[in-house]
Amino acid sequence: MNANKKSEKIRIAIDAMGGDFSPKNEVEGTLLALNSPEGKNLEIIFFGNKAKIEIVLSAANFQNDNRISIVDTKDEVVTMSDNPVESIRTKRASSMFKAIESHKKGETDGFISAGNTGATLAISTTLLGRIEGVSRPTIGTFFPTITNLPAFLTDAGATLERQPRFLYEYAIMGNIYFREIFGVKKPSVGLLNVGEESTKGTEELIETYNMLKNSHLNFIGNIEGRDILTGKVNLVITDGFTGNIVLKFAESFLPVMKESLKQFAETTTLNKLKTGIIAPTLKQILSRFNYEIYGGVPLLGVNGVVIIGHGSSSPTAIKNMILSAVNTIENKICNKIRLALNAHAL
Amino acid sequence: MNANKKSEKIRIAIDAMGGDFSPKNEVEGTLLALNSPEGKNLEIIFFGNKAKIEIVLSAANFQNDNRISIVDTKDEVVTMSDNPVESIRTKRASSMFKAIESHKKGETDGFISAGNTGATLAISTTLLGRIEGVSRPTIGTFFPTITNLPAFLTDAGATLERQPRFLYEYAIMGNIYFREIFGVKKPSVGLLNVGEESTKGTEELIETYNMLKNSHLNFIGNIEGRDILTGKVNLVITDGFTGNIVLKFAESFLPVMKESLKQFAETTTLNKLKTGIIAPTLKQILSRFNYEIYGGVPLLGVNGVVIIGHGSSSPTAIKNMILSAVNTIENKICNKIRLALNAHAL
Repeated sequence: MNANKKSEKIRIAIDAMGGDFSPKNEVEGTLLALNSPEGKNLEIIFFGNKAKIEIVLSAANFQNDNRISIVDTKDEVVTMSDNPVESIRTKRASSMFKAIESHKKGETDGFISAGNTGATLAISTTLLGRIEGVSRPTIGTFFPTITNLPAFLTDAGATLERQPRFLYEYAIMGNIYFREIFGVKKPSVGLLNVGEESTKGTEELIETYNMLKNSHLNFIGNIEGRDILTGKVNLVITDGFTGNIVLKFAESFLPVMKESLKQFAETTTLNKLKTGIIAPTLKQILSRFNYEIYGGVPLLGVNGVVIIGHGSSSPTAIKNMILSAVNTIENKICNKIRLALNAHAL
Repeated sequence: MNANKKSEKIRIAIDAMGGDFSPKNEVEGTLLALNSPEGKNLEIIFFGNKAKIEIVLSAANFQNDNRISIVDTKDEVVTMSDNPVESIRTKRASSMFKAIESHKKGETDGFISAGNTGATLAISTTLLGRIEGVSRPTIGTFFPTITNLPAFLTDAGATLERQPRFLYEYAIMGNIYFREIFGVKKPSVGLLNVGEESTKGTEELIETYNMLKNSHLNFIGNIEGRDILTGKVNLVITDGFTGNIVLKFAESFLPVMKESLKQFAETTTLNKLKTGIIAPTLKQILSRFNYEIYGGVPLLGVNGVVIIGHGSSSPTAIKNMILSAVNTIENKICNKIRLALNAHAL
């Protein structure tokens, strides 16, 4: 069975044009993935400007071994400023749309993009459709913690409304994802709230608390903002508005630290010297707070495998996104979500 | 006028029992305030266990100069675990209740507490009442930024509901507070949202955006989580749920950094050495992220001056809370809020 499984090709569709450094980082990241131990059975289909992609491939001295193919979408691209919902209608010839379409048709097994997150969400949801039983797809995201494992927060911004059923489903989906990807049998689940008591928060949160408490999940109760980075729980459940604000706030911390160091160095020559001395060690210590190490984050709840990356994704981040997609495919996460939500339908 | 103003006594009621290090830090902080240049016209009325307060006073070798008096409330205290709403009824003999009551009666000009925040909010709102035109009192809070000024976020958790009128009033109140305390003529105002475009967010947020845009405020539009620490705006407007989550998340950063350093030091002897070398400089650089430097935060919108501090407030934090109260009183912030909200009634 395992031997059989290993010989199966896994085909990943890559939107090669949507990121800030496209197609360079997408192509370089792909080569890293293909050359990694996990890349043996990979097949990559780039969607993008063929000429531009080939320039990067030849600059990297890539020897074609049939594991890469290109669907030429010329200069048709979803930009960062495109309206996500409108892009469903207006960007049908774009690299992103075509790539997701290939996944929908079963020509590829998964899709990654470092492009417009809103458009990825909108086009994926429209083309792939929701898994039965899923009210709203959700974007999960990783927060580094002081433990060995990250915290996985859902929803990071896919749906702004705070409805108990939505939050409950995020927990069900996040539970499967975290369990399969990190091998934690019973991930602990916390509901993000303004206090620990079960009566805290709005009516929707109290209702969500009770739904989670009565579920099969390892629900430990309400957690507060201060508990995310300490790794108190594996899964942090919140609405997409709150999740998005906290995520972006967290992402600002490293740049702010960097700027603080720069300002400090500029005050006196001694401080400049001190900064030079501490910078390498500090960088080493802070590396765990670099949000790029996780590569990308999954869109859960659609009929397909979609990994979303930052616009500024580095080649290493792209590589990790590809490997995340592979992981998600191999662990049949979509199917497990379908089964779980049917078993726990209201 | 000024000479006259300076001779007026300012009387501050202090809940000496509610904090984690009560009454020690409250008393020591008071002495710091009395000995500061701004403390000349201060009069402090402690509410708490007289015997315990006097022990700290005599340990500090305090020479009574009639600027301190004590109302003995024995061991009646609102604890951190008391239910805020119930405390209105059950804790009428407590140091907190008695202190706020003295402010209500006009026996004192302002009130500070390092005790139970929810109880401070509940008892203050009940006893002092709301300023006419205020729908919900709000707790503002400071975030350090990479500029010279902190960002002032409202609401930090007083009201969880996200209603446009509430958010609009927070902006009006925050504008006055920031202007008077920091001397910024036209503080810039940002609405915390998931994107910059005016159409982003939920219906309530779009409505709030339009209210702020049509106001006299220096509204620069929507801001994102990443814009708080960069000081993009002076005032960050959000609902109390989101504000509370982000605040507590931010407060966790220094402890998490500390723990990361500790873990790093424990890996090898060389890393231990490295940590020892960088720690003092790092501490210096990170001091701006120490949330205690602001001492306390104001409760705005009640008929009175209420400054709320962390349970763990240090003597310096208590001193700063007292001086914040003085500042709020001298700048007649309550009255200016009343005038502004009457001028901008819907």
